[in-house]
Amino acid sequence: MEQLPASEPKPLTVAMLIYPGMTLIDFAGPQLALGLHGKTHHVWKTLEPVVSDTGVSVNPTDTYGTCPRDVDVLFVGGATDPAWLMEDRETMDFLVDVARSARYVTSVCTGSLLLGAAGLLDGYKSSCHWAYIDALRALGVDATDDRITKDRNRLSGGGATAGVDYGIAMLAELRGESVAKVTQLIMQYAPEPPFVGGSPRLAEAEVTKIATDILAPFVAEGIRIATSVGRERKERAVAA
Amino acid sequence: MEQLPASEPKPLTVAMLIYPGMTLIDFAGPQLALGLHGKTHHVWKTLEPVVSDTGVSVNPTDTYGTCPRDVDVLFVGGATDPAWLMEDRETMDFLVDVARSARYVTSVCTGSLLLGAAGLLDGYKSSCHWAYIDALRALGVDATDDRITKDRNRLSGGGATAGVDYGIAMLAELRGESVAKVTQLIMQYAPEPPFVGGSPRLAEAEVTKIATDILAPFVAEGIRIATSVGRERKERAVAA
Repeated sequence: MEQLPASEPKPLTVAMLIYPGMTLIDFAGPQLALGLHGKTHHVWKTLEPVVSDTGVSVNPTDTYGTCPRDVDVLFVGGATDPAWLMEDRETMDFLVDVARSARYVTSVCTGSLLLGAAGLLDGYKSSCHWAYIDALRALGVDATDDRITKDRNRLSGGGATAGVDYGIAMLAELRGESVAKVTQLIMQYAPEPPFVGGSPRLAEAEVTKIATDILAPFVAEGIRIATSVGRERKERAVAA
Repeated sequence: MEQLPASEPKPLTVAMLIYPGMTLIDFAGPQLALGLHGKTHHVWKTLEPVVSDTGVSVNPTDTYGTCPRDVDVLFVGGATDPAWLMEDRETMDFLVDVARSARYVTSVCTGSLLLGAAGLLDGYKSSCHWAYIDALRALGVDATDDRITKDRNRLSGGGATAGVDYGIAMLAELRGESVAKVTQLIMQYAPEPPFVGGSPRLAEAEVTKIATDILAPFVAEGIRIATSVGRERKERAVAA
């Protein structure tokens, strides 16, 4: 269907970072919600395919050079192992550059670590995947595992599947409640999770322990890099 | 992370049909849940990229020729406009061939129309996207818009976002509740939909009317092709 009949004359323009190791569903939920109402750009350094953390190969539509500025939404999804990209100067510069003129600067899951490493969450509250909250805090960000957090023109979702909630919430901001509701119905977002326990607030202690242990090496690396990036940024601020 | 530590020695083998016009999130939810516990094959006629209904370009890993048979799961996701593929003999033959030796034959959203057109839902109950129920019925399938339907070795999800529920439910079948719960927590599937109304049972009448009107041309085409395919299959059965 490509695009739904627009409720406003101008289709949305959305810049979505994609990268090796990304979690596909972080991207897929927001991309559907926003892509039904405009043009989404899938942006990486090159036009070579990027492969997700579970092995799905996706082709970028734009590079950092060709991605439009002046977008309605800048979006960054997460990854199981996002740490390496936090240190990538080219990516951080790209995010800062697009954020300058974006109407909304947004993320899902550990995408907040990338925005935070770029300095785009200084003084903002942001959601993050529950396991990586301490990494986001190490960047000096007011981090939470709330499903959705809105703070001025920052909108962020919690882990992975929160991208669907994010997509509908972002649409409500941009196009109003009526359009968001119609889109939620088209996406049939009337969830019935097979189990209670999709967040540590709800999960059995044993389940949380196993999940925490599985993610521990990635979280540790996230905290290590976040601490180093946070320190560097503080030193630069003092020197300036 | 690629794969979680396996609770069974043998990683899952999963065949996932991908195709031009597919809805990415139908595929992304199941792919994450199952891909964390095994190898997912993303299968199309050729290795050329397929572009989703909202413009995401994905590269197949396998063709109909190279896709393994004897898989744990055959999975078919949906599309806004699935009708054309129901008439594609090569695809129907591929689905029938893999289903013969698959442990589970499964779908999300309008993927059920493809399984149904291949004759793989004869005598089975199946879920489908709410808007396309009549198309699935035109194939002679006992269709419902329930979030998840299990009927012997058929497991099916409702529209689009039901792929996440499907993925966790499929894992519970294959690996047990404990593994499914850990995976649900890693995917942070503790949904908080921004609005009530993700299914026509819950939505305001006006919202359902707008969504129904938007999807009407695709649904009409689905019913037309399903009726023709259903009639042909009945005639072949009588002739045999």
